Amino acid sequence: VEFIMQDETIEDLQCKDFKLIQKKQGFRFGLDSVLLADFATIKNNGKVVDLGTGTGIVPILLCAKKIVSNVIGVEIQPHLVEMANRSVTLNNLQDKIKIIEGDIKNLDALGRDEFDAVVSNPPYIKLNTGIRSVQKEKDISRHEVLCNIDDIISTSSKLLKDKGYLNIVHKPERLADIICSMRKYQIEPKFIRFVHPNINKKPNIVLIKGVKRGGQDLKFLKPLLVYDSNYSYSTEINKIYGRGDTEQ
Amino acid sequence: VEFIMQDETIEDLQCKDFKLIQKKQGFRFGLDSVLLADFATIKNNGKVVDLGTGTGIVPILLCAKKIVSNVIGVEIQPHLVEMANRSVTLNNLQDKIKIIEGDIKNLDALGRDEFDAVVSNPPYIKLNTGIRSVQKEKDISRHEVLCNIDDIISTSSKLLKDKGYLNIVHKPERLADIICSMRKYQIEPKFIRFVHPNINKKPNIVLIKGVKRGGQDLKFLKPLLVYDSNYSYSTEINKIYGRGDTEQ
Repeated sequence: VEFIMQDETIEDLQCKDFKLIQKKQGFRFGLDSVLLADFATIKNNGKVVDLGTGTGIVPILLCAKKIVSNVIGVEIQPHLVEMANRSVTLNNLQDKIKIIEGDIKNLDALGRDEFDAVVSNPPYIKLNTGIRSVQKEKDISRHEVLCNIDDIISTSSKLLKDKGYLNIVHKPERLADIICSMRKYQIEPKFIRFVHPNINKKPNIVLIKGVKRGGQDLKFLKPLLVYDSNYSYSTEINKIYGRGDTEQ
Repeated sequence: VEFIMQDETIEDLQCKDFKLIQKKQGFRFGLDSVLLADFATIKNNGKVVDLGTGTGIVPILLCAKKIVSNVIGVEIQPHLVEMANRSVTLNNLQDKIKIIEGDIKNLDALGRDEFDAVVSNPPYIKLNTGIRSVQKEKDISRHEVLCNIDDIISTSSKLLKDKGYLNIVHKPERLADIICSMRKYQIEPKFIRFVHPNINKKPNIVLIKGVKRGGQDLKFLKPLLVYDSNYSYSTEINKIYGRGDTEQ
Protein backbone atom coordinates (compact mmCIF):
# COMPACT_ATOMS: atom_id res chain seq x y z
CA VAL A 1 0.00 0.00 0.00
CA GLU A 2 3.05 2.23 0.37
CA PHE A 3 3.16 2.08 -3.44
CA ILE A 4 0.38 4.60 -3.94
CA MET A 5 -0.44 8.18 -2.99
CA GLN A 6 -3.72 9.42 -1.63
CA ASP A 7 -4.85 10.71 -5.02
CA GLU A 8 -4.11 7.43 -6.79
CA THR A 9 -5.81 4.05 -7.24
CA ILE A 10 -4.48 0.61 -8.13
CA GLU A 11 -6.33 -0.99 -11.06
CA ASP A 12 -6.34 -4.78 -11.40
CA LEU A 13 -5.62 -5.41 -15.11
CA GLN A 14 -7.25 -8.87 -14.82
CA CYS A 15 -4.41 -10.38 -16.77
CA LYS A 16 -1.55 -12.35 -15.15
CA ASP A 17 -2.26 -10.48 -11.91
CA PHE A 18 -0.77 -7.26 -13.33
CA LYS A 19 -1.78 -3.98 -11.76
CA LEU A 20 -1.63 -0.32 -12.74
CA ILE A 21 -1.35 2.82 -10.64
CA GLN A 22 -3.46 5.72 -11.91
CA LYS A 23 -4.46 9.15 -10.66
CA LYS A 24 -8.07 9.27 -9.52
CA GLN A 25 -8.51 12.52 -11.45
CA GLY A 26 -5.89 12.16 -14.21
CA PHE A 27 -5.79 10.27 -17.49
CA ARG A 28 -7.12 6.75 -16.96
CA PHE A 29 -6.49 4.00 -19.50
CA GLY A 30 -9.26 2.75 -21.74
CA LEU A 31 -10.15 0.19 -24.36
CA ASP A 32 -7.83 1.82 -26.91
CA SER A 33 -4.68 0.88 -24.96
CA VAL A 34 -5.89 -2.71 -24.57
CA LEU A 35 -6.65 -2.97 -28.29
CA LEU A 36 -3.26 -1.49 -29.23
CA ALA A 37 -1.37 -4.00 -27.06
CA ASP A 38 -3.35 -6.82 -28.67
CA PHE A 39 -3.04 -5.54 -32.26
CA ALA A 40 0.65 -4.61 -32.24
CA THR A 41 3.14 -6.69 -34.19
CA ILE A 42 6.13 -7.21 -31.88
CA LYS A 43 8.96 -9.57 -32.74
CA ASN A 44 9.57 -11.97 -29.83
CA ASN A 45 11.97 -10.34 -27.37
CA GLY A 46 12.61 -7.53 -29.85
CA LYS A 47 13.44 -3.98 -28.79
CA VAL A 48 10.25 -1.96 -28.34
CA VAL A 49 9.58 1.68 -27.56
CA ASP A 50 6.24 3.16 -26.43
CA LEU A 51 5.98 6.83 -27.39
CA GLY A 52 3.92 8.76 -24.84
CA THR A 53 3.61 5.94 -22.33
CA GLY A 54 1.75 7.94 -19.66
CA THR A 55 0.94 5.55 -16.79
CA GLY A 56 2.94 2.79 -18.52
CA ILE A 57 -0.23 0.89 -19.38
CA VAL A 58 0.85 -0.25 -22.86
CA PRO A 59 4.28 -1.66 -21.84
CA ILE A 60 2.67 -3.52 -18.94
CA LEU A 61 -0.08 -4.92 -21.19
CA LEU A 62 2.56 -5.97 -23.74
CA CYS A 63 4.26 -7.98 -20.98
CA ALA A 64 0.90 -9.64 -20.33
CA LYS A 65 0.02 -10.35 -23.95
CA LYS A 66 3.24 -10.78 -25.93
CA ILE A 67 6.70 -12.27 -25.57
CA VAL A 68 8.61 -9.10 -24.74
CA SER A 69 11.66 -8.49 -22.58
CA ASN A 70 12.90 -5.08 -23.64
CA VAL A 71 10.40 -2.22 -23.67
CA ILE A 72 11.22 1.45 -23.19
CA GLY A 73 8.34 3.76 -22.30
CA VAL A 74 8.96 7.44 -23.08
CA GLU A 75 6.98 10.07 -21.19
CA ILE A 76 7.45 13.84 -21.02
CA GLN A 77 5.63 14.54 -17.74
CA PRO A 78 7.97 13.80 -14.79
CA HIS A 79 5.22 12.90 -12.33
CA LEU A 80 3.89 10.27 -14.77
CA VAL A 81 7.39 8.85 -15.27
CA GLU A 82 7.67 8.44 -11.52
CA MET A 83 4.19 6.89 -11.20
CA ALA A 84 4.72 4.53 -14.16
CA ASN A 85 7.99 3.36 -12.62
CA ARG A 86 6.14 2.50 -9.41
CA SER A 87 3.70 0.40 -11.50
CA VAL A 88 6.63 -1.38 -13.13
CA THR A 89 8.11 -2.18 -9.71
CA LEU A 90 4.72 -3.21 -8.34
CA ASN A 91 4.52 -5.83 -11.11
CA ASN A 92 8.17 -6.88 -10.79
CA LEU A 93 8.79 -5.92 -14.42
CA GLN A 94 11.97 -3.87 -13.85
CA ASP A 95 13.99 -6.28 -16.02
CA LYS A 96 11.64 -5.87 -18.96
CA ILE A 97 10.39 -2.28 -18.85
CA LYS A 98 12.31 0.98 -18.52
CA ILE A 99 10.29 4.19 -18.20
CA ILE A 100 12.29 7.25 -19.16
CA GLU A 101 11.59 10.97 -19.24
CA GLY A 102 11.90 12.31 -22.76
CA ASP A 103 10.43 14.53 -25.46
CA ILE A 104 9.12 12.64 -28.51
CA LYS A 105 10.40 15.50 -30.67
CA ASN A 106 13.99 14.70 -29.70
CA LEU A 107 14.86 11.12 -28.87
CA ASP A 108 18.22 11.02 -30.61
CA ALA A 109 19.71 9.62 -27.39
CA LEU A 110 17.84 6.35 -28.01
CA GLY A 111 19.77 5.79 -31.22
CA ARG A 112 18.83 5.29 -34.85
CA ASP A 113 17.60 2.13 -36.57
CA GLU A 114 17.61 0.46 -33.15
CA PHE A 115 14.07 -0.78 -32.52
CA ASP A 116 12.05 -3.69 -33.86
CA ALA A 117 8.76 -2.04 -33.00
CA VAL A 118 7.21 1.24 -31.90
CA VAL A 119 3.81 1.43 -30.20
CA SER A 120 1.92 4.63 -29.54
CA ASN A 121 -1.46 5.73 -28.24
CA PRO A 122 -0.91 9.44 -28.87
CA PRO A 123 -3.15 12.43 -28.18
CA TYR A 124 -5.98 12.22 -30.72
CA ILE A 125 -7.22 15.77 -31.07
CA LYS A 126 -5.77 18.58 -33.15
CA LEU A 127 -5.05 21.86 -31.44
CA ASN A 128 -7.76 24.45 -32.03
CA THR A 129 -10.47 21.76 -32.23
CA GLY A 130 -12.53 20.17 -29.47
CA ILE A 131 -12.87 21.20 -25.85
CA ARG A 132 -9.58 21.46 -23.96
CA SER A 133 -9.36 19.86 -20.53
CA VAL A 134 -8.56 22.24 -17.66
CA GLN A 135 -6.66 19.35 -16.09
CA LYS A 136 -3.13 19.56 -17.55
CA GLU A 137 -2.44 15.80 -17.53
CA LYS A 138 -5.68 15.00 -19.38
CA ASP A 139 -5.15 17.93 -21.75
CA ILE A 140 -1.68 16.72 -22.78
CA SER A 141 -2.92 13.15 -23.26
CA ARG A 142 -5.90 14.18 -25.40
CA HIS A 143 -4.85 17.25 -27.37
CA GLU A 144 -1.73 17.64 -29.48
CA VAL A 145 -0.26 20.13 -27.04
CA LEU A 146 3.28 18.75 -26.86
CA CYS A 147 3.45 16.50 -29.92
CA ASN A 148 1.41 15.70 -33.01
CA ILE A 149 1.08 12.86 -35.52
CA ASP A 150 4.02 14.08 -37.58
CA ASP A 151 6.27 14.15 -34.50
CA ILE A 152 5.29 10.59 -33.53
CA ILE A 153 5.83 9.21 -37.02
CA SER A 154 9.03 11.06 -37.89
CA THR A 155 10.59 9.95 -34.59
CA SER A 156 9.34 6.38 -35.13
CA SER A 157 10.99 6.33 -38.53
CA LYS A 158 14.31 7.33 -36.98
CA LEU A 159 14.07 4.78 -34.16
CA LEU A 160 12.90 1.77 -36.20
CA LYS A 161 15.11 -0.71 -37.97
CA ASP A 162 14.22 -1.35 -41.62
CA LYS A 163 11.16 -3.65 -41.70
CA GLY A 164 10.35 -2.69 -38.10
CA TYR A 165 6.69 -2.11 -37.20
CA LEU A 166 5.01 1.11 -36.13
CA ASN A 167 1.74 0.28 -34.32
CA ILE A 168 -0.72 3.10 -33.60
CA VAL A 169 -4.20 3.47 -32.17
CA HIS A 170 -6.03 6.66 -33.10
CA LYS A 171 -9.32 8.24 -34.12
CA PRO A 172 -10.56 7.34 -37.64
CA GLU A 173 -10.98 11.06 -38.37
CA ARG A 174 -7.18 11.39 -38.35
CA LEU A 175 -6.54 8.51 -40.77
CA ALA A 176 -5.61 10.74 -43.71
CA ASP A 177 -3.07 12.58 -41.53
CA ILE A 178 -1.60 9.28 -40.32
CA ILE A 179 -1.33 7.67 -43.77
CA CYS A 180 0.21 10.75 -45.40
CA SER A 181 2.67 11.21 -42.53
CA MET A 182 3.69 7.55 -42.69
CA ARG A 183 4.48 7.77 -46.38
CA LYS A 184 6.31 11.07 -45.83
CA TYR A 185 8.65 9.32 -43.39
CA GLN A 186 9.12 6.04 -45.31
CA ILE A 187 6.72 3.98 -43.22
CA GLU A 188 4.36 2.05 -45.48
CA PRO A 189 0.82 1.43 -44.12
CA LYS A 190 0.27 -2.35 -44.05
CA PHE A 191 -2.73 -3.23 -41.88
CA ILE A 192 -5.78 -1.23 -40.87
CA ARG A 193 -8.53 -2.38 -38.55
CA PHE A 194 -11.55 -0.30 -37.61
CA VAL A 195 -13.28 -0.65 -34.26
CA HIS A 196 -17.03 0.04 -34.15
CA PRO A 197 -19.28 0.24 -31.07
CA ASN A 198 -21.58 -2.08 -33.05
CA ILE A 199 -22.26 -2.87 -36.66
CA ASN A 200 -24.77 -0.07 -37.08
CA LYS A 201 -22.25 2.59 -36.03
CA LYS A 202 -19.38 4.28 -37.78
CA PRO A 203 -15.91 3.35 -36.50
CA ASN A 204 -14.69 5.29 -33.46
CA ILE A 205 -11.19 3.79 -33.15
CA VAL A 206 -8.66 2.83 -35.83
CA LEU A 207 -5.72 0.48 -35.40
CA ILE A 208 -2.99 0.89 -38.00
CA LYS A 209 0.42 -0.61 -38.46
CA GLY A 210 3.11 0.27 -40.94
CA VAL A 211 6.54 -1.10 -41.83
CA LYS A 212 9.63 1.06 -42.24
CA ARG A 213 10.73 0.84 -45.87
CA GLY A 214 8.10 -1.85 -46.52
CA GLY A 215 6.59 -2.52 -49.94
CA GLN A 216 3.14 -1.20 -50.85
CA ASP A 217 0.62 -3.83 -49.75
CA LEU A 218 -2.21 -2.44 -47.62
CA LYS A 219 -4.65 -4.90 -46.08
CA PHE A 220 -7.84 -4.33 -44.12
CA LEU A 221 -8.98 -6.64 -41.37
CA LYS A 222 -12.59 -7.43 -40.56
CA PRO A 223 -14.29 -4.90 -38.28
CA LEU A 224 -13.85 -5.27 -34.54
CA LEU A 225 -17.23 -4.81 -32.85
CA VAL A 226 -17.11 -3.79 -29.20
CA TYR A 227 -20.67 -4.64 -28.23
CA ASP A 228 -23.01 -7.38 -29.39
CA SER A 229 -26.71 -6.98 -29.96
CA ASN A 230 -27.40 -7.31 -26.21
CA TYR A 231 -25.14 -4.35 -25.37
CA SER A 232 -22.65 -6.61 -23.64
CA TYR A 233 -19.01 -6.95 -24.75
CA SER A 234 -18.62 -9.02 -27.90
CA THR A 235 -16.91 -12.41 -27.79
CA GLU A 236 -13.82 -10.95 -29.44
CA ILE A 237 -13.50 -8.10 -26.94
CA ASN A 238 -13.84 -10.56 -24.05
CA LYS A 239 -11.14 -12.68 -25.68
CA ILE A 240 -8.82 -9.68 -26.05
CA TYR A 241 -9.33 -8.63 -22.44
CA GLY A 242 -8.91 -12.18 -21.14
CA ARG A 243 -6.22 -13.53 -23.42
CA GLY A 244 -3.43 -13.18 -20.89
CA ASP A 245 -5.26 -15.44 -18.45
CA THR A 246 -6.12 -18.17 -20.96
CA GLU A 247 -2.46 -18.37 -21.99
CA GLN A 248 -1.23 -19.02 -18.48
CA VAL B 1 -33.71 -3.80 -81.47
CA GLU B 2 -31.74 -2.03 -84.21
CA PHE B 3 -29.94 -0.37 -81.28
CA ILE B 4 -27.76 -3.37 -80.51
CA MET B 5 -25.22 -5.57 -82.25
CA GLN B 6 -25.12 -9.34 -82.17
CA ASP B 7 -22.42 -9.42 -79.48
CA GLU B 8 -24.34 -7.03 -77.19
CA THR B 9 -27.18 -7.27 -74.69
CA ILE B 10 -29.60 -4.70 -73.29
CA GLU B 11 -29.71 -4.67 -69.49
CA ASP B 12 -32.81 -3.33 -67.74
CA LEU B 13 -31.47 -1.09 -64.95
CA GLN B 14 -34.77 -1.53 -63.03
CA CYS B 15 -34.84 2.14 -62.32
CA LYS B 16 -37.07 4.63 -64.17
CA ASP B 17 -37.12 2.17 -67.11
CA PHE B 18 -33.51 3.01 -67.99
CA LYS B 19 -31.54 0.47 -70.00
CA LEU B 20 -27.86 -0.15 -70.75
CA ILE B 21 -26.16 -1.71 -73.75
CA GLN B 22 -23.23 -3.94 -72.86
CA LYS B 23 -20.98 -6.37 -74.68
CA LYS B 24 -21.76 -9.99 -73.84
CA GLN B 25 -18.03 -10.65 -73.37
CA GLY B 26 -16.73 -7.19 -72.39
CA PHE B 27 -16.74 -5.22 -69.15
CA ARG B 28 -20.17 -5.49 -67.54
CA PHE B 29 -21.25 -3.08 -64.81
CA GLY B 30 -21.48 -4.24 -61.20
CA LEU B 31 -22.49 -3.18 -57.73
CA ASP B 32 -19.61 -0.69 -57.51
CA SER B 33 -21.10 1.57 -60.22
CA VAL B 34 -24.50 1.50 -58.53
CA LEU B 35 -22.97 2.38 -55.16
CA LEU B 36 -20.91 5.22 -56.66
CA ALA B 37 -23.98 6.79 -58.30
CA ASP B 38 -25.81 6.59 -54.98
CA PHE B 39 -22.91 7.84 -52.83
CA ALA B 40 -21.78 10.75 -55.02
CA THR B 41 -22.39 14.32 -53.91
CA ILE B 42 -23.71 16.15 -56.96
CA LYS B 43 -25.06 19.68 -56.77
CA ASN B 44 -28.52 19.81 -58.39
CA ASN B 45 -28.10 20.45 -62.11
CA GLY B 46 -24.38 21.08 -61.60
CA LYS B 47 -21.75 20.29 -64.21
CA VAL B 48 -20.52 16.73 -63.78
CA VAL B 49 -17.81 14.69 -65.50
CA ASP B 50 -17.38 10.91 -65.30
CA LEU B 51 -13.76 9.90 -65.87
CA GLY B 52 -13.55 6.52 -67.61
CA THR B 53 -17.25 6.16 -68.29
CA GLY B 54 -17.01 2.88 -70.25
CA THR B 55 -20.55 1.82 -71.13
CA GLY B 56 -21.91 5.08 -69.70
CA ILE B 57 -23.42 3.27 -66.74
CA VAL B 58 -22.59 5.92 -64.13
CA PRO B 59 -24.00 8.94 -66.05
CA ILE B 60 -27.19 6.98 -66.78
CA LEU B 61 -27.55 5.92 -63.13
CA LEU B 62 -26.96 9.53 -62.04
CA CYS B 63 -29.90 10.55 -64.24
CA ALA B 64 -31.97 7.90 -62.44
CA LYS B 65 -30.88 8.77 -58.91
CA LYS B 66 -29.99 12.47 -58.80
CA ILE B 67 -31.13 15.77 -60.18
CA VAL B 68 -28.63 16.12 -63.01
CA SER B 69 -28.88 17.74 -66.41
CA ASN B 70 -25.28 18.17 -67.53
CA VAL B 71 -23.04 15.12 -67.39
CA ILE B 72 -20.01 14.49 -69.61
CA GLY B 73 -18.71 10.93 -69.79
CA VAL B 74 -15.09 10.62 -70.92
CA GLU B 75 -13.92 7.34 -72.44
CA ILE B 76 -10.69 6.50 -74.27
CA GLN B 77 -11.88 3.43 -76.21
CA PRO B 78 -13.75 4.56 -79.37
CA HIS B 79 -16.01 1.48 -79.58
CA LEU B 80 -17.21 2.12 -76.01
CA VAL B 81 -17.86 5.80 -76.77
CA GLU B 82 -20.03 4.69 -79.68
CA MET B 83 -21.86 2.05 -77.61
CA ALA B 84 -22.39 4.40 -74.64
CA ASN B 85 -23.85 7.01 -77.00
CA ARG B 86 -26.34 4.42 -78.24
CA SER B 87 -27.37 3.75 -74.60
CA VAL B 88 -27.83 7.50 -74.08
CA THR B 89 -30.05 7.69 -77.15
CA LEU B 90 -31.96 4.53 -76.15
CA ASN B 91 -32.87 6.28 -72.87
CA ASN B 92 -33.60 9.64 -74.50
CA LEU B 93 -30.94 11.29 -72.35
CA GLN B 94 -29.15 13.18 -75.16
CA ASP B 95 -29.98 16.51 -73.53
CA LYS B 96 -28.40 15.51 -70.24
CA ILE B 97 -25.45 13.26 -71.12
CA LYS B 98 -22.61 13.77 -73.59
CA ILE B 99 -20.18 10.88 -74.10
CA ILE B 100 -16.87 12.04 -75.53
CA GLU B 101 -13.68 10.29 -76.56
CA GLY B 102 -10.76 11.51 -74.51
CA ASP B 103 -7.65 10.60 -72.55
CA ILE B 104 -7.88 11.24 -68.79
CA LYS B 105 -4.23 12.28 -68.85
CA ASN B 106 -5.09 15.25 -71.06
CA LEU B 107 -8.51 16.82 -70.73
CA ASP B 108 -7.41 20.44 -70.99
CA ALA B 109 -10.09 20.91 -73.68
CA LEU B 110 -12.79 20.54 -70.98
CA GLY B 111 -11.52 23.65 -69.24
CA ARG B 112 -10.24 24.41 -65.77
CA ASP B 113 -12.25 25.00 -62.58
CA GLU B 114 -15.37 24.21 -64.61
CA PHE B 115 -17.08 21.27 -62.87
CA ASP B 116 -19.15 20.96 -59.70
CA ALA B 117 -18.43 17.26 -59.40
CA VAL B 118 -16.28 14.47 -60.78
CA VAL B 119 -17.26 10.81 -60.50
CA SER B 120 -14.98 7.89 -61.33
CA ASN B 121 -14.98 4.12 -61.12
CA PRO B 122 -11.41 3.69 -62.36
CA PRO B 123 -9.38 0.54 -62.95
CA TYR B 124 -8.55 -0.87 -59.52
CA ILE B 125 -5.42 -2.91 -60.02
CA LYS B 126 -1.84 -1.73 -60.20
CA LEU B 127 0.23 -2.79 -63.18
CA ASN B 128 2.53 -5.71 -62.40
CA THR B 129 0.05 -7.15 -59.86
CA GLY B 130 -2.88 -9.51 -60.39
CA ILE B 131 -3.80 -11.55 -63.44
CA ARG B 132 -4.21 -9.51 -66.63
CA SER B 133 -7.25 -10.14 -68.80
CA VAL B 134 -6.53 -11.30 -72.34
CA GLN B 135 -9.66 -9.37 -73.35
CA LYS B 136 -8.42 -5.81 -74.04
CA GLU B 137 -11.63 -4.04 -72.91
CA LYS B 138 -11.71 -5.89 -69.58
CA ASP B 139 -7.96 -5.43 -69.14
CA ILE B 140 -8.18 -1.64 -69.56
CA SER B 141 -11.16 -1.41 -67.20
CA ARG B 142 -9.48 -3.48 -64.47
CA HIS B 143 -5.74 -2.76 -64.63
CA GLU B 144 -4.08 0.65 -64.65
CA VAL B 145 -3.00 0.21 -68.27
CA LEU B 146 -3.97 3.62 -69.60
CA CYS B 147 -4.37 5.68 -66.42
CA ASN B 148 -3.74 5.35 -62.70
CA ILE B 149 -4.99 6.93 -59.47
CA ASP B 150 -2.65 9.90 -59.79
CA ASP B 151 -3.91 10.62 -63.32
CA ILE B 152 -7.56 10.51 -62.21
CA ILE B 153 -6.97 12.76 -59.22
CA SER B 154 -4.65 15.30 -60.83
CA THR B 155 -7.09 15.70 -63.73
CA SER B 156 -10.04 15.96 -61.31
CA SER B 157 -8.26 18.71 -59.45
CA LYS B 158 -7.85 20.69 -62.67
CA LEU B 159 -11.47 20.17 -63.75
CA LEU B 160 -13.18 20.90 -60.42
CA LYS B 161 -14.24 24.27 -59.16
CA ASP B 162 -13.09 25.13 -55.65
CA LYS B 163 -15.32 23.23 -53.18
CA GLY B 164 -16.33 20.83 -55.96
CA TYR B 165 -16.62 17.12 -55.08
CA LEU B 166 -14.51 14.25 -56.35
CA ASN B 167 -16.42 10.96 -55.84
CA ILE B 168 -14.56 7.68 -56.30
CA VAL B 169 -15.26 3.98 -55.83
CA HIS B 170 -12.20 1.76 -55.46
CA LYS B 171 -10.64 -1.18 -53.67
CA PRO B 172 -9.80 -0.60 -49.97
CA GLU B 173 -6.26 -1.84 -50.64
CA ARG B 174 -5.64 1.34 -52.65
CA LEU B 175 -6.88 3.73 -49.96
CA ALA B 176 -3.42 4.97 -48.99
CA ASP B 177 -2.67 5.75 -52.64
CA ILE B 178 -5.98 7.59 -53.03
CA ILE B 179 -5.64 9.67 -49.85
CA CYS B 180 -2.04 10.68 -50.53
CA SER B 181 -2.82 11.54 -54.15
CA MET B 182 -5.83 13.63 -53.10
CA ARG B 183 -3.74 15.69 -50.70
CA LYS B 184 -0.99 16.01 -53.31
CA TYR B 185 -3.49 17.64 -55.68
CA GLN B 186 -5.34 19.83 -53.14
CA ILE B 187 -8.37 17.58 -52.80
CA GLU B 188 -9.14 17.02 -49.12
CA PRO B 189 -10.68 13.63 -48.20
CA LYS B 190 -14.04 14.30 -46.53
CA PHE B 191 -16.16 11.12 -46.39
CA ILE B 192 -15.19 7.48 -46.46
CA ARG B 193 -17.58 4.54 -46.48
CA PHE B 194 -16.52 0.91 -46.53
CA VAL B 195 -18.64 -1.77 -48.16
CA HIS B 196 -18.46 -5.28 -46.67
CA PRO B 197 -19.99 -8.50 -48.05
CA ASN B 198 -21.24 -8.99 -44.48
CA ILE B 199 -20.21 -7.92 -41.03
CA ASN B 200 -17.80 -10.83 -40.56
CA LYS B 201 -15.80 -9.89 -43.65
CA LYS B 202 -13.20 -7.24 -44.33
CA PRO B 203 -14.31 -4.44 -46.69
CA ASN B 204 -14.01 -5.17 -50.41
CA ILE B 205 -15.14 -1.79 -51.77
CA VAL B 206 -14.42 1.74 -50.55
CA LEU B 207 -16.40 4.86 -51.42
CA ILE B 208 -14.51 8.11 -50.89
CA LYS B 209 -15.27 11.72 -51.63
CA GLY B 210 -13.04 14.72 -51.34
CA VAL B 211 -13.46 18.46 -51.81
CA LYS B 212 -11.12 20.64 -53.83
CA ARG B 213 -9.42 23.08 -51.47
CA GLY B 214 -11.67 21.87 -48.64
CA GLY B 215 -10.72 22.11 -44.98
CA GLN B 216 -9.45 19.07 -43.08
CA ASP B 217 -12.49 17.27 -41.67
CA LEU B 218 -12.59 13.57 -42.47
CA LYS B 219 -15.71 11.63 -41.53
CA PHE B 220 -16.48 7.93 -41.70
CA LEU B 221 -19.93 6.58 -42.40
CA LYS B 222 -21.36 3.39 -40.94
CA PRO B 223 -20.43 0.25 -42.88
CA LEU B 224 -22.55 -0.72 -45.85
CA LEU B 225 -23.30 -4.45 -45.70
CA VAL B 226 -24.21 -6.08 -49.01
CA TYR B 227 -25.74 -9.30 -47.69
CA ASP B 228 -27.77 -9.98 -44.59
CA SER B 229 -27.50 -13.10 -42.48
CA ASN B 230 -29.68 -15.04 -44.95
CA TYR B 231 -27.30 -14.36 -47.85
CA SER B 232 -29.88 -12.17 -49.54
CA TYR B 233 -29.29 -8.48 -50.33
CA SER B 234 -29.50 -6.27 -47.26
CA THR B 235 -32.34 -3.78 -46.86
CA GLU B 236 -29.97 -0.90 -47.65
CA ILE B 237 -28.70 -2.49 -50.87
CA ASN B 238 -32.27 -3.14 -51.99
CA LYS B 239 -33.08 0.48 -51.22
CA ILE B 240 -30.07 1.73 -53.23
CA TYR B 241 -31.01 -0.44 -56.20
CA GLY B 242 -34.65 0.55 -56.03
CA ARG B 243 -34.46 4.19 -54.98
CA GLY B 244 -35.15 5.54 -58.45
CA ASP B 245 -38.49 3.74 -58.57
CA THR B 246 -39.68 4.76 -55.12
CA GLU B 247 -39.02 8.42 -55.94
CA GLN B 248 -41.20 8.40 -59.03
